[in-house]
Amino acid sequence: MSRNVKDQAADIKRYSVNLAGSTEQERNRALEAVKEALWENRSIIFQENQTDMDLGIQHGLSDPILKRLRFDESKLRSVLDGIEDLIRMSDPLGKTLLKRELDTALTLEKITCPIGVIGVIFESRPDALVQIAALCLKSGNCALMKGGSEAMRTNRILYRTIFEAACGCGIDPHFLTLLESRSQIDELLECEGSIDLLIPRGSNEFVSYIMEHTKIPVMGHASGICHVYVDKHANIKQAVAVVLDSKLQYVVVCNAAETILVHERIASVFLPELIRELGNRTLEIRGDEAVAQIIPCVPASEDDFGTEFADRIASVKIVSSTEEAAAHINRYGSGHTDAILTEDSDAAETFFALVDSASVMHNCSTRFADGYRYGFGAEVGVSTGKLHARGPVGLDGLTTYKYLVRGNGHIVAPYENGDKEFRFKNL
Amino acid sequence: MSRNVKDQAADIKRYSVNLAGSTEQERNRALEAVKEALWENRSIIFQENQTDMDLGIQHGLSDPILKRLRFDESKLRSVLDGIEDLIRMSDPLGKTLLKRELDTALTLEKITCPIGVIGVIFESRPDALVQIAALCLKSGNCALMKGGSEAMRTNRILYRTIFEAACGCGIDPHFLTLLESRSQIDELLECEGSIDLLIPRGSNEFVSYIMEHTKIPVMGHASGICHVYVDKHANIKQAVAVVLDSKLQYVVVCNAAETILVHERIASVFLPELIRELGNRTLEIRGDEAVAQIIPCVPASEDDFGTEFADRIASVKIVSSTEEAAAHINRYGSGHTDAILTEDSDAAETFFALVDSASVMHNCSTRFADGYRYGFGAEVGVSTGKLHARGPVGLDGLTTYKYLVRGNGHIVAPYENGDKEFRFKNL
Repeated sequence: MSRNVKDQAADIKRYSVNLAGSTEQERNRALEAVKEALWENRSIIFQENQTDMDLGIQHGLSDPILKRLRFDESKLRSVLDGIEDLIRMSDPLGKTLLKRELDTALTLEKITCPIGVIGVIFESRPDALVQIAALCLKSGNCALMKGGSEAMRTNRILYRTIFEAACGCGIDPHFLTLLESRSQIDELLECEGSIDLLIPRGSNEFVSYIMEHTKIPVMGHASGICHVYVDKHANIKQAVAVVLDSKLQYVVVCNAAETILVHERIASVFLPELIRELGNRTLEIRGDEAVAQIIPCVPASEDDFGTEFADRIASVKIVSSTEEAAAHINRYGSGHTDAILTEDSDAAETFFALVDSASVMHNCSTRFADGYRYGFGAEVGVSTGKLHARGPVGLDGLTTYKYLVRGNGHIVAPYENGDKEFRFKNL
Repeated sequence: MSRNVKDQAADIKRYSVNLAGSTEQERNRALEAVKEALWENRSIIFQENQTDMDLGIQHGLSDPILKRLRFDESKLRSVLDGIEDLIRMSDPLGKTLLKRELDTALTLEKITCPIGVIGVIFESRPDALVQIAALCLKSGNCALMKGGSEAMRTNRILYRTIFEAACGCGIDPHFLTLLESRSQIDELLECEGSIDLLIPRGSNEFVSYIMEHTKIPVMGHASGICHVYVDKHANIKQAVAVVLDSKLQYVVVCNAAETILVHERIASVFLPELIRELGNRTLEIRGDEAVAQIIPCVPASEDDFGTEFADRIASVKIVSSTEEAAAHINRYGSGHTDAILTEDSDAAETFFALVDSASVMHNCSTRFADGYRYGFGAEVGVSTGKLHARGPVGLDGLTTYKYLVRGNGHIVAPYENGDKEFRFKNL
């Protein structure tokens, strides 16, 4: 393990075809073995985690970090359930996306295959290690992982357990590698050519840093600046409930709303009703001048729009049309998730067409934008990029495709000089 | 046009939703109008092209560049045919990829939409301007284009003709912008956030420069280092024909072969037969030592493997198995297109599984890897990236998708506290 990361990554790349060529049975059998081994090793896993926790407390880690660091029986059961779900899911590899006869005895087939080598960099949560290792194994991708140093002992025993169980089923040992030194992150970011995709999981600053410092494609989202637009034809009672759910049900997550846009024709009814329904729950409202004329609020600065508060704060702005709302969202949002609340289906369709975000909601909470709630099963992450995978990403996001062409000595010369013609026929 | 490129791009981004929201009829009507206008303006187009050609000859441009620069009636007819094909193709936008009931009155839909704003940078060929403008218009994407300065007059009249014809049909004028100054390329490369995708078309050096100097995703390929592997069970006569077609049918294109790998058990029969069949055609063979023992050749250096000669030169190497051939290809190739020639279907399946390239061929020429020959119609380009679009890219490569969720006041709280459960049902 003393080799540099570039050499390790090049090696993994070279051997990644072995995992790619494994059968569904082999990969599922390995996942079964991983599941059993994790359960069998649970006492030592919990013990190692306790050491990480004790050291974390000594080092004064914050409560939310300690909460994420904790790996107990309930977290273990949850990741084992996840692996069980993955085993049951149909094979994402070798699916035929297109089959076409190009000419007699010359056929084109487009089939799904693994992306290859995935670099995974995550903070704190050891359950992420298990989850991502399982997703990569199911989809035939080799994973090169770097976890947070505060979870080092937990990560190490989880890694060893998974590694040994899968290798014991004949999976190529290059399928999973754990990096432990912080300095290796920068080395990892320079492995373009060996690593095909990076998946960072952690704070906005952390993800932004990764995105800024690598030439490898990154799947993820730095920020979730989500909006709820309350149209003039909104059902007030429903709108209040959806706004409160979007904003307050869980404030730190990326699909929570940050900004509420309200149509000028409904603001004087909606905003006081929102305050009333809020009751004694805390919510700091930062409003523009028009909002301040209706309800008490902190004056909003330009910066309050386009900020992910991830807190009990909302910026509020009055707009005069669905078009203005959409333009505001496209300018200040992060392309993650935005909602319109209206009984006017034309306004909803306009909003759907104009808002350039991965998920666009009509009469429901932004918080539904999530792989589990979309029924994708295991979630790889949420992408705010527009290429490859967008929005909540399931197992499919870890696959690409290749074209296989089968001929019988076909050459292009006769097609070029007009002696032969293609006769395309989908099979 | 004196504004800087970043401001222009931000503006285009802002208005791109208008084109994205246009109907299929509007976009097809605009394409019809573009087609007619190009034909009506043909004399002035040819005249402007003649001026570019005269200046190019004065400036001593090479014959291949002048050939690409030429825009005559045959090139015009060919791009008009391309537009005609595009009009006939089904709308790539608004296709439902998934429709699922999440719970009563809560539905998820995944539909295709344009990527948004495409930056296109191309060298020499004015027909590329027409082709790409038409592809972007059909797929609802705004295009910001920079053509080669040697084609400035031709590009300008083509641009004006297309711009005025489409705007006359009510298409938002932000749909197409032409940049004319070379210094604007570097500005364009810094428009991440406004430009969603860059498509460079030109020499390897040119494409590599673009890929190295931008944070915007790039679709394309810098090099095409394609291999043909002649297996021990190859049909010799067929293999010779396919190797010669792959290597010599058109040497400068990216899907032409550069390296020939030959199994040790067939080399002493195949190689002399290849030389015999070559006859008096020129082909410089750079072989490893084992090759030199069979046929006369130039000694191959390490650099001769992994080089795109784009010339009448081939590197040749003897290998001892399909696995060794695949490993060589994965190491030295560019992931573009590689072929195996064999009568042994097991060897072909091994090759298909182990070779990590966009197109993998069995018993046919690498030259088939092409959007037209795959039956995709208009071709956006060939991608050697593995994410989003891989291999020959058709109109689909210019689309992404968004998730639309329609509810009736649904909030996540009851699903979180267990009062409600998702009941996923594909519709």
